[in-house]
Amino acid sequence: MPTIVVDVMPKAELLDPQGKAVSGALHRLGVEGFSSVRIGKRFELTVETADEATLATVRQLADDVLSNAVIEDVVGIEVVE
Amino acid sequence: MPTIVVDVMPKAELLDPQGKAVSGALHRLGVEGFSSVRIGKRFELTVETADEATLATVRQLADDVLSNAVIEDVVGIEVVE
Repeated sequence: MPTIVVDVMPKAELLDPQGKAVSGALHRLGVEGFSSVRIGKRFELTVETADEATLATVRQLADDVLSNAVIEDVVGIEVVE
Repeated sequence: MPTIVVDVMPKAELLDPQGKAVSGALHRLGVEGFSSVRIGKRFELTVETADEATLATVRQLADDVLSNAVIEDVVGIEVVE
């Protein structure tokens, strides 16, 4: 059965405390060269068919259910299998 | 500056309570055709250069810092910009 991946990230202009925490950890580990870390969510939806109707439903769900439009952006919707 | 995306998902054989919750919500909303929902993490690492050394570092970090090898798998590492 096909899988549709939906990627959701915090809005770029918002503070990302989790990302800051990981970024700080990298510095403490002596790992340089990473100017920022941002953390979002990756949804894998297993569907019966990845037809156009299902993709339209997923787009709607991504905006309404899988993300909070006030603080997050849907950055990708992709059929992977 | 280039961005490297690291995708981390819960191991397939493990229960994913968050995914189950979203899957249940879809059913209650009357949305059918989705047999499972799994939720993982998406890291966006902004780096100075996306050269081979940096990618090797990111692979190491993905296993050691960004994921918990006991319950998660790194499912993708990709330079996106």
